[in-house]
Amino acid sequence: MELNFLSDNMTGASPEIIDALHKTNAGLLPAYGEDALTARVAAKLKDIFEADVTVFLVATGTSANALSLAALSPPFGAIYCHRDAHVEVDECGAPEFYTGGAKLVDLPGDHGKLSVTDIETALATAHQGVVHRVQPAAITLTQATEAGTCYRPSEVAAIAAAGRRYGVRLHMDGARFANALCFLAVSPAEITWRAGVDILSFGATKNGAVAAEAVVIFDNQLATDFAFRRKRGGHLLSKMRFLSAQLDAYLEGELWLKNATHANAMAKRLAEGLASISGARIVHPVEANEVFVDLPERTIQGLAADGFQVRRWIGEDQTLLRLVTAFNTKSVDVAKFINSARRHAGAAGP
Amino acid sequence: MELNFLSDNMTGASPEIIDALHKTNAGLLPAYGEDALTARVAAKLKDIFEADVTVFLVATGTSANALSLAALSPPFGAIYCHRDAHVEVDECGAPEFYTGGAKLVDLPGDHGKLSVTDIETALATAHQGVVHRVQPAAITLTQATEAGTCYRPSEVAAIAAAGRRYGVRLHMDGARFANALCFLAVSPAEITWRAGVDILSFGATKNGAVAAEAVVIFDNQLATDFAFRRKRGGHLLSKMRFLSAQLDAYLEGELWLKNATHANAMAKRLAEGLASISGARIVHPVEANEVFVDLPERTIQGLAADGFQVRRWIGEDQTLLRLVTAFNTKSVDVAKFINSARRHAGAAGP
Amino acid sequence: MELNFLSDNMTGASPEIIDALHKTNAGLLPAYGEDALTARVAAKLKDIFEADVTVFLVATGTSANALSLAALSPPFGAIYCHRDAHVEVDECGAPEFYTGGAKLVDLPGDHGKLSVTDIETALATAHQGVVHRVQPAAITLTQATEAGTCYRPSEVAAIAAAGRRYGVRLHMDGARFANALCFLAVSPAEITWRAGVDILSFGATKNGAVAAEAVVIFDNQLATDFAFRRKRGGHLLSKMRFLSAQLDAYLEGELWLKNATHANAMAKRLAEGLASISGARIVHPVEANEVFVDLPERTIQGLAADGFQVRRWIGEDQTLLRLVTAFNTKSVDVAKFINSARRHAGAAGP
Amino acid sequence: MELNFLSDNMTGASPEIIDALHKTNAGLLPAYGEDALTARVAAKLKDIFEADVTVFLVATGTSANALSLAALSPPFGAIYCHRDAHVEVDECGAPEFYTGGAKLVDLPGDHGKLSVTDIETALATAHQGVVHRVQPAAITLTQATEAGTCYRPSEVAAIAAAGRRYGVRLHMDGARFANALCFLAVSPAEITWRAGVDILSFGATKNGAVAAEAVVIFDNQLATDFAFRRKRGGHLLSKMRFLSAQLDAYLEGELWLKNATHANAMAKRLAEGLASISGARIVHPVEANEVFVDLPERTIQGLAADGFQVRRWIGEDQTLLRLVTAFNTKSVDVAKFINSARRHAGAAGP
Repeated sequence: MELNFLSDNMTGASPEIIDALHKTNAGLLPAYGEDALTARVAAKLKDIFEADVTVFLVATGTSANALSLAALSPPFGAIYCHRDAHVEVDECGAPEFYTGGAKLVDLPGDHGKLSVTDIETALATAHQGVVHRVQPAAITLTQATEAGTCYRPSEVAAIAAAGRRYGVRLHMDGARFANALCFLAVSPAEITWRAGVDILSFGATKNGAVAAEAVVIFDNQLATDFAFRRKRGGHLLSKMRFLSAQLDAYLEGELWLKNATHANAMAKRLAEGLASISGARIVHPVEANEVFVDLPERTIQGLAADGFQVRRWIGEDQTLLRLVTAFNTKSVDVAKFINSARRHAGAAGP
Repeated sequence: MELNFLSDNMTGASPEIIDALHKTNAGLLPAYGEDALTARVAAKLKDIFEADVTVFLVATGTSANALSLAALSPPFGAIYCHRDAHVEVDECGAPEFYTGGAKLVDLPGDHGKLSVTDIETALATAHQGVVHRVQPAAITLTQATEAGTCYRPSEVAAIAAAGRRYGVRLHMDGARFANALCFLAVSPAEITWRAGVDILSFGATKNGAVAAEAVVIFDNQLATDFAFRRKRGGHLLSKMRFLSAQLDAYLEGELWLKNATHANAMAKRLAEGLASISGARIVHPVEANEVFVDLPERTIQGLAADGFQVRRWIGEDQTLLRLVTAFNTKSVDVAKFINSARRHAGAAGP
Repeated sequence: MELNFLSDNMTGASPEIIDALHKTNAGLLPAYGEDALTARVAAKLKDIFEADVTVFLVATGTSANALSLAALSPPFGAIYCHRDAHVEVDECGAPEFYTGGAKLVDLPGDHGKLSVTDIETALATAHQGVVHRVQPAAITLTQATEAGTCYRPSEVAAIAAAGRRYGVRLHMDGARFANALCFLAVSPAEITWRAGVDILSFGATKNGAVAAEAVVIFDNQLATDFAFRRKRGGHLLSKMRFLSAQLDAYLEGELWLKNATHANAMAKRLAEGLASISGARIVHPVEANEVFVDLPERTIQGLAADGFQVRRWIGEDQTLLRLVTAFNTKSVDVAKFINSARRHAGAAGP
Repeated sequence: MELNFLSDNMTGASPEIIDALHKTNAGLLPAYGEDALTARVAAKLKDIFEADVTVFLVATGTSANALSLAALSPPFGAIYCHRDAHVEVDECGAPEFYTGGAKLVDLPGDHGKLSVTDIETALATAHQGVVHRVQPAAITLTQATEAGTCYRPSEVAAIAAAGRRYGVRLHMDGARFANALCFLAVSPAEITWRAGVDILSFGATKNGAVAAEAVVIFDNQLATDFAFRRKRGGHLLSKMRFLSAQLDAYLEGELWLKNATHANAMAKRLAEGLASISGARIVHPVEANEVFVDLPERTIQGLAADGFQVRRWIGEDQTLLRLVTAFNTKSVDVAKFINSARRHAGAAGP
């Protein structure tokens, strides 16, 4: 495959994580998560989040999100999300499936972020208690967002507080949680439960794991049914050791933060390089590992001619690209991409 | 953990499969199964089954089964299964969840096998077309069964034919398909679609994979919705390469058959050794990698005292054990177990 | 249509109830149950049950049952019922639909009644807390049963207590509740909440209403979600007055008890008449408005020749009949049926 | 209750329909819709729609809509609707429940009507065949709309054609179908199947029935599962005669058209009267039995003071009212309302 920045799903995994699969392979271990390795992952996450969290491991982000929302919403619930959120547009209705038919309510928001004003308006007009209406149950926000931006702790707290006034709980889709954390330079606790998050989909796959996510539950009352729903969804791995080993290695020696720091740095460099090109426009603040850039048509065609695989983000006739960096993106490839773009843009930067 | 024969889920994976994860790790690959490795797995399965099958990979047996049944049954369907079947007793209602509420109808059957007579009776009295009743939709049988026995091709064909007369389709839960195949010494085609199977859960996890199952669909019309249901269930892996690599290695060089042949041989040896012990009784024919043996109480306690982890299959006061061998069970451990049992039984064998 | 005793669904309604529809027709009333008539029905039921019950009205017994079970069971729940129960065999999977896929667990039992021993065994072996298993959530019993028999208060209490030990709640399907009550000669409170019933489907349709059932909830904590589930199921009538008027008339002046008393008396007379016929066998104790009688083949054919519509209960080649009387069954028709049967039986009774 | 124009759900039923309940009450009839009266209703609807339609009767509009959408959409489907549609805002998620979790996609549209352009755009960007997305399955439009307006045959046809290009089917929520028909002065066939409608919720309750709606299916292939879904939803009435009798009387002698014609005329008169008042503004074209009028605050308060029950449509601080007329609205009450409004408006009309 040609060089590309299409997605953080197209890379492999961190070597440390592959090695961990190797290491955990020997011997007999209790199945279904009754093993010591799984317990160690939970312990690490308790340390990291400075809280007595309940942890459930699954292999996909979609299942982490859908199971989390099912813990928060009854079948007749309304779940408020950004209209570009992964749960709304990219999961083929998994939240509806797992909740038994709850309704996702789309809200707009600049740069992929929900505004507390929109949420307050939506909740205030939701006809709570009126039997004809689905009932406000949860808000879900994505950290980092689909636009590559990050919610500040104060923003999360304001959203959580708005929900709390209506008895509405808060889920955070943290498929790129590590990237957000590194950008924000806050503690995991500060951006989650201290700001009012009830459940977090703690992503690892995009940031270097093979296929591993942890659902981190801050309100243990929400954990009661989770194990049964996970099993019933087919997401309880029999040889759980292989899922736990990934997360164990991911958390060990701050690998997760190192990976994210690198990906973020590469995105920043990419954005800075492209920003200086004539006719280019960085569309969203670059706060994680994604760059949304509008490039001149000839630049896009030139990049393709140079062997870069590029995909137009919105439509065939559009010139907006989403570029994603990963834990293993090479500086040299970033440089190549910038140089190619610059060359085809015709005009040099400063 | 002490020596045990508790389950084929407690082992790790075949080294070849772990190595395959290593090898597939390099470079960029299309996500979500659009890669060449995934295509190769499908091609291999087409060869193995001598048919133009449609293949979907998932990480768990429960999801393979539940998604398969959802392809066969409407929400108001009846699914006929053995009362000890995994789908009925060990999946926390996953089939009900994925089908939207179909009803599993339990049937009895010696040694874990459905009888065609019971199925015919059930179908004949199912009130097909009567709106008050759930409607016959599917039969699911387990190969090898929960009792470690195997359906012969003629048995499968008779069951399939009975169903077909009522427009009812046939699913095979092949969590231990390889073990059955090795025992039966038939071709994969012969025991599946040629005998009337419509969908197969082709298991790999128990037989040496990390977490990998293939749903093999013989009637391609049943495949239409499958991709959406898999995604919606959260079972579409983004870094699909790691799932495909497992199955690729599993099928390569007949690893799957070698693994199953070994596990079966170990079970046979274990059964033969235990059968010769005074007071022991082998409860089901040993046709795959499971031995159900009733042992004297003192023998069970003696085994435990010797460091073997033993679990009573039915209840605390019962002396029936299920012993499961795996692809990597060592002869020496089998011998140790037999010797321990024999010693504690008091009486010697031949 | 020829004379028949096929079902209590084939009659019309009590004239008092039709009149009530007339009377409620005038003027404007709040829709969706916010009217005074609906409140009056709730008040009457509070009086009748001597408890601060919550009441929800619906038009069908299936919806009353399925919504009640959805209030008691999570999607991963097990609901214990008699294997002949209406919820299990005659509702096309409505309980599975409304609960989001719970599993109905069939239990045997003489004369349509669950035995406390079977329930205790089922609960004791249900693997509560084990994630692979559906979790015990509810027991549902039918009063009067599908076999026309009635649970005594002590029987209900024993079943409720067995369930309570496992945190399992009790639903009573009272499609023929009035008939049972008249036979048992106990108070409504005594046979329901005082004996441990949590939710009752209080039937009216079979006993003289047009289409009306009340769900009576004894534990108000179970009522929280009910209104939303009813609306979502499409069971909240806009012109609720017409549903409430039926129940109001049904409860007025003890019409419900008069109707049931009559139906029971007709069944008793029918049973006594048939019992005296040579070759006839009353299969279940006649305790409500149903008679299960095994008649000689020639008797059945004779009845049909005399213009009675008869339906064989189990199958075409069987001679068991279910005969159902209703609030408006005429003595003369009962006598005709007995005479016809006696004539065709050849031998006279005493 | 004070005089009001709050809803067409607050009236009773046409006397002819109440009488029909009376008349159908005598004698035994087959239960569950196997009776001749039910067949006659189907025959009448075939005549009226000039097509071999399949008909299912239910008691509520919500069930008619939700069951219809379940016939059109898989669980992973997208259903396009106006953002003010009853199915979207007033059914507590019934469509999601009955479809098994399909997603309703809101579209804007002036005066409650979907525009073919918006639909085409939505379908063109729906990523059909892409596994991450819910898949376009159905469009539902309301006739008359929630804004009291009507789609012309050409508008329906254009929407149907747009859908058809993507394999998307068309449902019409005809809770006020009769009102639309009378306004449009077209034949039932012309505005439904000839324009491309696949399923119609043919409402009767709002237009004079007690609780009765007919689902009219124009493509019989869509009818296969309907009977089971209706039963499973608890919407199959045992004493179906009482549902059929309502529709039989409703269709007899064009009662349905007479009722709607009257309601429409009253709405028109109301609108014309209010339009002439100083400061009043009719917000949507009055094409059925609803008037949306913005009135000066003092006028609203004056109406309330005169004993009219008024409800602000959007919010407490808003002056928009929805006024609904019914089959039995009296001219004198319309005149009273207009006079009261005029008096309190201070300024006279022409």
